[in-house]
Amino acid sequence: MNITVWNECHPSTKSGKTAKIYPDGIHVAIKDIFAGDEILKVRTVLQEEPENGLTDTVLSETDVLIWWGHVWQNNVLDSVSDKVCKRILGGMGAIFLHSAYASKPFTRLMGTSCTLKWRDIEEKERVWTVNPSHAIVSGIPETFSLEPEIMYGEFFDIPTPDELILLGWYPGGELIRAGCTFRRGYGKVFYFQPGHESCPTFYNENVKRLIYNATLWAAPQGTIKNQIQPIQSGKPAEPVEIQKKKGIFKKYF
Amino acid sequence: MNITVWNECHPSTKSGKTAKIYPDGIHVAIKDIFAGDEILKVRTVLQEEPENGLTDTVLSETDVLIWWGHVWQNNVLDSVSDKVCKRILGGMGAIFLHSAYASKPFTRLMGTSCTLKWRDIEEKERVWTVNPSHAIVSGIPETFSLEPEIMYGEFFDIPTPDELILLGWYPGGELIRAGCTFRRGYGKVFYFQPGHESCPTFYNENVKRLIYNATLWAAPQGTIKNQIQPIQSGKPAEPVEIQKKKGIFKKYF
Amino acid sequence: MNITVWNECHPSTKSGKTAKIYPDGIHVAIKDIFAGDEILKVRTVLQEEPENGLTDTVLSETDVLIWWGHVWQNNVLDSVSDKVCKRILGGMGAIFLHSAYASKPFTRLMGTSCTLKWRDIEEKERVWTVNPSHAIVSGIPETFSLEPEIMYGEFFDIPTPDELILLGWYPGGELIRAGCTFRRGYGKVFYFQPGHESCPTFYNENVKRLIYNATLWAAPQGTIKNQIQPIQSGKPAEPVEIQKKKGIFKKYF
Amino acid sequence: MNITVWNECHPSTKSGKTAKIYPDGIHVAIKDIFAGDEILKVRTVLQEEPENGLTDTVLSETDVLIWWGHVWQNNVLDSVSDKVCKRILGGMGAIFLHSAYASKPFTRLMGTSCTLKWRDIEEKERVWTVNPSHAIVSGIPETFSLEPEIMYGEFFDIPTPDELILLGWYPGGELIRAGCTFRRGYGKVFYFQPGHESCPTFYNENVKRLIYNATLWAAPQGTIKNQIQPIQSGKPAEPVEIQKKKGIFKKYF
Repeated sequence: MNITVWNECHPSTKSGKTAKIYPDGIHVAIKDIFAGDEILKVRTVLQEEPENGLTDTVLSETDVLIWWGHVWQNNVLDSVSDKVCKRILGGMGAIFLHSAYASKPFTRLMGTSCTLKWRDIEEKERVWTVNPSHAIVSGIPETFSLEPEIMYGEFFDIPTPDELILLGWYPGGELIRAGCTFRRGYGKVFYFQPGHESCPTFYNENVKRLIYNATLWAAPQGTIKNQIQPIQSGKPAEPVEIQKKKGIFKKYF
Repeated sequence: MNITVWNECHPSTKSGKTAKIYPDGIHVAIKDIFAGDEILKVRTVLQEEPENGLTDTVLSETDVLIWWGHVWQNNVLDSVSDKVCKRILGGMGAIFLHSAYASKPFTRLMGTSCTLKWRDIEEKERVWTVNPSHAIVSGIPETFSLEPEIMYGEFFDIPTPDELILLGWYPGGELIRAGCTFRRGYGKVFYFQPGHESCPTFYNENVKRLIYNATLWAAPQGTIKNQIQPIQSGKPAEPVEIQKKKGIFKKYF
Repeated sequence: MNITVWNECHPSTKSGKTAKIYPDGIHVAIKDIFAGDEILKVRTVLQEEPENGLTDTVLSETDVLIWWGHVWQNNVLDSVSDKVCKRILGGMGAIFLHSAYASKPFTRLMGTSCTLKWRDIEEKERVWTVNPSHAIVSGIPETFSLEPEIMYGEFFDIPTPDELILLGWYPGGELIRAGCTFRRGYGKVFYFQPGHESCPTFYNENVKRLIYNATLWAAPQGTIKNQIQPIQSGKPAEPVEIQKKKGIFKKYF
Repeated sequence: MNITVWNECHPSTKSGKTAKIYPDGIHVAIKDIFAGDEILKVRTVLQEEPENGLTDTVLSETDVLIWWGHVWQNNVLDSVSDKVCKRILGGMGAIFLHSAYASKPFTRLMGTSCTLKWRDIEEKERVWTVNPSHAIVSGIPETFSLEPEIMYGEFFDIPTPDELILLGWYPGGELIRAGCTFRRGYGKVFYFQPGHESCPTFYNENVKRLIYNATLWAAPQGTIKNQIQPIQSGKPAEPVEIQKKKGIFKKYF
């Protein structure tokens, strides 16, 4: 199983606060979640690479894509976003992390604005599990906290999730649907809301396990099709006889 | 309450089979569903009109949009489709009928390919209610049939509907999720699958009642916003004090 | 439309703190929500009455039942709970308020334990709307607070709601799915979590409007059946011919 | 992982038509689905055994229970049904097959009547996948047929499934939600509609794979609790200070 971790990796994160927490970049911290697992092959790609790192070859070799982006993911090429969406609709799994709620492929797959409230005062977030039998929260306690984290709050303009798995609580009075699944085409999507660049969230053991679990969950069950389902016309699944005129029937099968 | 019925009204439908069934156009048959109701104001617009009939004025006066399109709805301007989507996300209700599954605004709001199987042999469709307490099927029998109808069958590549209300059965062995609701932003969307241009479906009493019910259901509950929700940042909903350094706290409210 | 407000009205609430807030009982405060509406007819019944106030006559005349119970609702007769469930499955609407999460009919309709966390320190609750296009939150602001309220928190062991409409936030770090719909049989159920007997919640304008809206939403769309759907056997919906032996077919219709 | 296959195994099935198809009983045919898998341990138990075969020991050793019952499953002891439900709410997976829709534990977990339409004329059923990315349909074609099968049709009075995975089509004009998941407490439930005792359905390769997949899906992700979640009261998740009177605050943590 091949995992691709995509990071916008804006130059500003190569120094300053983010660089202190993630000296090799957030993508490396995410890649390290899978360290020690010899079955999963993980590669990292960056927005600054040709075709934003998501060439046809990379995509065709990817079973699950993990996306972290924030300040310049809006510059991702439309053609790249289109190919990512097509691949997801064809069966590739996808994990969208934190600010990826505003990324081109995520908003395109959702069909809504995906807007929300936010506040960066280095608050705390407390995460609660509301779907305890789900594979994504296997081994995760009923509640755990992340400190500091920034606030992303409701109303979060997403379609009703297929499954609501986590809720997030903040001391400032807000809350959010923090872990949600969405099936789109032949693919599975998981949105996980924590994970700001100035917070050590991706070193938290619960978060690491959640992302690990979600990646296994999102993995395609069958062969990924390299296209969306075409509109199909053809013969009936069962033989059928239609009356064309009085007494005149035509058989189809 | 203002209803706008949009019809692509392709020139080919002004003569031939469709014209025999719908001599004044499908839009007029749909408009007639609301005849006699003095509270509802219904206008019809056509794709051939400037801005495809959906000017800012028309949209700003519309509470529920009913869309019928098929062979050239793909030529609707992107700018018009964008405005329709924005208005729906802001609260306008929308009913997408039959081939509108492939329309620009519907596929954009769904985020999937919306592809399906089809076959036009003037088959029959039998419709079943699987959500009997829903307002949209008030007064509708558990099952009724439409003959002739064409076949639209699964796999229908839509996101999981918020509510699955109707299923459609065909003698040729296929079936489909034929009546589905989707909440998007502040707006409500209903997709209704029957209604081919060569079939008298929009004269069927059950179909008429379904469309009437769905229009009332889709009507906005509050004021329609003429924009999607912006991303908002600001003060906390509850006063909160954050520790900045050892012994140093900062209050926010 | 006939509404029945059911209150356990335990003797202990006729004096002390509850009596100060609700001198005539919580049922009267709930009944008053509908004051001034001449179309809705509201009656109140108490657990202490024969058949716990829910005789066949009362039930057969009720379109929407509103249930408030807490300390001795567990003494409601099984036969009464069964009749309430049967009537809901037959189409009667039902609003279960606050501690009614543990009532016999609610847990029976849910099929789960409905257990949760609680804490009574006269905290505050902040309510958030996460389904803004829903009729139940028409006219309700995105967020409002109730103070004091007690804490009911996740994990709340209910089935996945058909619609998640409200979330509740508490300063003590918990949160809850605070407004949920559930379709059961031909009936609609709304659970609303705030409303402790020692808190003036049922005088809050937003709560009053929520309960009013929910009652209209829960009203049956068609005739209420006084029984659950029976298992039915009979002739096919479409004529069908089955091959019995080689060359021998039998027709059914 | 321990699987228990429960069969009512009515004496009438030990001769006649069922015995011709399933000479060793349906439970053995279901057990054989897992033959060759050395990790899964499968035991079979029958209704005629003490405590209907589901003793505390058997249940405490079961990760996934597969239930086939029809003509006398209604005689299962209430105490046994209660224990099965408690174990499922505590995390045990469960697969209910065909007529098990009317079994005590299934109806109890659903909270509805679970009634449906039926007809036994040795019809055919055609199954369609409408949730192609789900683990339960991994390796299953978009559509396949079972012949003969009996008809179970809508309206099937179940709560809205968490996931609708399969639909069933019959030549006689009916259809049904034929493969549905339901999360209940800490446990996962799958209902699969085909599988009449007079039909060789459990030898069909697609059905075998579906049941195999569903069993893996339903397996508990964590430790099964031998009780349902209790109501819990206690200290807040976050320190909280409540104003008791003017100027008087009390801290809780």
